[in-house]
Amino acid sequence: MAAPPQSKGRPALSAQSTAASLAPFHDWWAERHRNGHFRVERLAFRDLDSWSFEPGTGNLAHASGRFFTIEGLQVRENGLDTWSQPIINQPEIGILGIVVKEFDGVLHCLMQAKMEPGNINTLQLSPTVQATRSNYTQVHRGMSTRYLEHFTGPGRGRVLVDVLQSEQGAWFWRKRNRNMVVLVTGEVPVHEDYCWLSLSQIRQLHHVDNLVNMDARTVLACLSGLLPEEAPPPAADAFRDALLRSCRYREDGNGARHTSGEILSWFTEAKTRCDWTARLTPLADVSGWARDDEEIADAHQRHFRIIAIGVEAGTREVQRWTQPLLLPRGEGRAVFLVRPFDGVLHVLVHARQQYGLMDLVEMAPTVLLPPGAGVTAVRERWLRGALASGKGTVRYDQVLSEEGGRFYNALTRYQIIEVGEEYATDPPPDYCWMTVRQLSALLRHGHYLTIEARSLLACLHSLY
Amino acid sequence: MAAPPQSKGRPALSAQSTAASLAPFHDWWAERHRNGHFRVERLAFRDLDSWSFEPGTGNLAHASGRFFTIEGLQVRENGLDTWSQPIINQPEIGILGIVVKEFDGVLHCLMQAKMEPGNINTLQLSPTVQATRSNYTQVHRGMSTRYLEHFTGPGRGRVLVDVLQSEQGAWFWRKRNRNMVVLVTGEVPVHEDYCWLSLSQIRQLHHVDNLVNMDARTVLACLSGLLPEEAPPPAADAFRDALLRSCRYREDGNGARHTSGEILSWFTEAKTRCDWTARLTPLADVSGWARDDEEIADAHQRHFRIIAIGVEAGTREVQRWTQPLLLPRGEGRAVFLVRPFDGVLHVLVHARQQYGLMDLVEMAPTVLLPPGAGVTAVRERWLRGALASGKGTVRYDQVLSEEGGRFYNALTRYQIIEVGEEYATDPPPDYCWMTVRQLSALLRHGHYLTIEARSLLACLHSLY
Repeated sequence: MAAPPQSKGRPALSAQSTAASLAPFHDWWAERHRNGHFRVERLAFRDLDSWSFEPGTGNLAHASGRFFTIEGLQVRENGLDTWSQPIINQPEIGILGIVVKEFDGVLHCLMQAKMEPGNINTLQLSPTVQATRSNYTQVHRGMSTRYLEHFTGPGRGRVLVDVLQSEQGAWFWRKRNRNMVVLVTGEVPVHEDYCWLSLSQIRQLHHVDNLVNMDARTVLACLSGLLPEEAPPPAADAFRDALLRSCRYREDGNGARHTSGEILSWFTEAKTRCDWTARLTPLADVSGWARDDEEIADAHQRHFRIIAIGVEAGTREVQRWTQPLLLPRGEGRAVFLVRPFDGVLHVLVHARQQYGLMDLVEMAPTVLLPPGAGVTAVRERWLRGALASGKGTVRYDQVLSEEGGRFYNALTRYQIIEVGEEYATDPPPDYCWMTVRQLSALLRHGHYLTIEARSLLACLHSLY
Repeated sequence: MAAPPQSKGRPALSAQSTAASLAPFHDWWAERHRNGHFRVERLAFRDLDSWSFEPGTGNLAHASGRFFTIEGLQVRENGLDTWSQPIINQPEIGILGIVVKEFDGVLHCLMQAKMEPGNINTLQLSPTVQATRSNYTQVHRGMSTRYLEHFTGPGRGRVLVDVLQSEQGAWFWRKRNRNMVVLVTGEVPVHEDYCWLSLSQIRQLHHVDNLVNMDARTVLACLSGLLPEEAPPPAADAFRDALLRSCRYREDGNGARHTSGEILSWFTEAKTRCDWTARLTPLADVSGWARDDEEIADAHQRHFRIIAIGVEAGTREVQRWTQPLLLPRGEGRAVFLVRPFDGVLHVLVHARQQYGLMDLVEMAPTVLLPPGAGVTAVRERWLRGALASGKGTVRYDQVLSEEGGRFYNALTRYQIIEVGEEYATDPPPDYCWMTVRQLSALLRHGHYLTIEARSLLACLHSLY
């Protein structure tokens, strides 16, 4: 077994993010792959252990009453039931936490090589702690959560980020996780599954498909607004200059197209346009979806399926468990369109209604296509045009994974496309041009940016 | 009919808030009372027009599917159903809006003399616009909403406040209203039910029982954080000096006991301590409550009742309607304990769980007693002691009304009590000392302060 790439808790990696500086990371990563043992198999629902469909409601639940349930969502418009679907209900609030520490004046994050059953490649780069409340209060009766004391203990370090943020509004019922970053100063023993990485190293890793996991991306996005951006690199081009200005300017009216007051009012207005209400309903009452021995699926085979899996995992100790997962049909797509206004990069944000969001609407990518949908699913012609190849400058284009603990191989193509100076100067009412700094500032609070928008924000910072 | 106390849209009242300066207001107010006609009578449920109990669910609903419904709330803890109760479900988002305008450099609010069936005194001072979405989209088929164009029209003035804020978490299911303030510059014709009042005049009126209504209080609280506080009055005492500093200091660490980051983290932490979930359930499934011809009440007669009323109202045109209302048993009590830390007044805020709140926890008064509960209902001895007479200095003590459109004679005794310098320097985890400025800043966003805390914040500004 190779030693982790640090000795006595210090990173062996250089803080400079050249490709060469990441060589020790890749060695460690390959070693983690070799070291881990992980096997996932599809099961029939009847082979789930401690999970069963409740009589009456038909909800799929764990015998303990904890973890999560698969229930139904019912949407109502103008007094009429319209859309219904299965939905994951996980009311408990978990922790997604990154421990950070300065080494030689450079902030480093303690990142984890973590296996999840739904990951396409088993192992992804994850926050220091990624634990549901059931996890860390040990309903699992498994191992205790490593490094948890840095987030919950009385002697924890300085809390830089601590905010509840939403997850996929199409698949989860009002789910939130606690996004945390804690700055420590003392010695932190580094377990072999963990590694110190500087922010610029992590930014480089954002350019690898399916490596930085969803939970890491959301926490890093929340952190990004708090950090002073470094001086611009010497060979800065116009795009990076505009991005830098967009990240830096703190004050309203200083290069931003809208004041923060205008943005908040625009967002409030968007919520009042929601004419629907959504509520939980028994899974048995969901119409247009059917259950057989192995999956719950919609009759038209357009949406996701709920499946059951068995997992065998471990290094020295072997853990086995079974659980339901959500399996999307194909790959999603999330795009931020960006362009400069007077030399300051702006992001075109969409106030998007989603039935599973606690507060009806959040700020979402300019375009968010559900898995399997093609560009033809974009109804707005002015948007569809910008997605056509050759129309804009593609600044970021990677396939990244959604949460592997609840979704099976859920992949999204994340893109940042720069459009021309004349594009959508006055967009329709559900859209708003905002600076990166304005988006980051909103992440001190919950209920503003969707999980996909937070992922894209982390990606945008990787272009700096 | 007397002319309203202004000519050509200008306030006849002096902006100085001496008792004499309010004489024209009181004349106008008395005239509004004489002019209005309002009769409310209790009805049996079967005499409600277009309202009925749905077969199956037993929910009390309007035939149009709009307005609101009386449904059930079911709380679940650790997999077990615990508490259930009736609850008002009103998913539509209404507007509570105040038009403001400068006259001779002094900001004035266009306030309304508005009748509500549940008001103990029929008429209370209300925002310019106070309309449910059903109101202003005219599901009522009644009159159109006066001054609505200042809040929704394309040519509206400068939006100063625009935020969704919660209402009573004990009685409403996740209800929010859109709190708005719009600054206009053009001529505004003043209808006889409306009156321009300066902020200092309104502050004086906060010292009259049951005059400034709940909807006005929440909007004024949201506005308070945006306004620069005037110079301190010449005969300022230590309390007002400390209050002034508490309102003014904008920066973290400048006299505030906690940074805004610490406050947000404290609040997030409080939410993660919620071990319950709440959901809507059919009213027929609520246990421990029974319905007879005239009311829905709990068996122990400890909580509120749901009743039915008929209303006849109008000046020239007569309107008649029927509706359900919530009738509390007795008077509630809401108290902010305040004290200076190093000469800066701090408010002791309680992170309070309420089953009807969308986000589980909001920042609430230090003490919030439900209607009819005595001080003995306060379990914490350190708090109970501070409420005993003679223990603190009572800075504010008025009985104010909760929303008269949904509640019948719902009165709350609002108090601000100054405690000594040694009091609760390090309070238990659910409590936090905050400055007025810090509370006001949070009101740019929803889900932070409860409706009762916002009322108290408006009252606190009236002491300035």
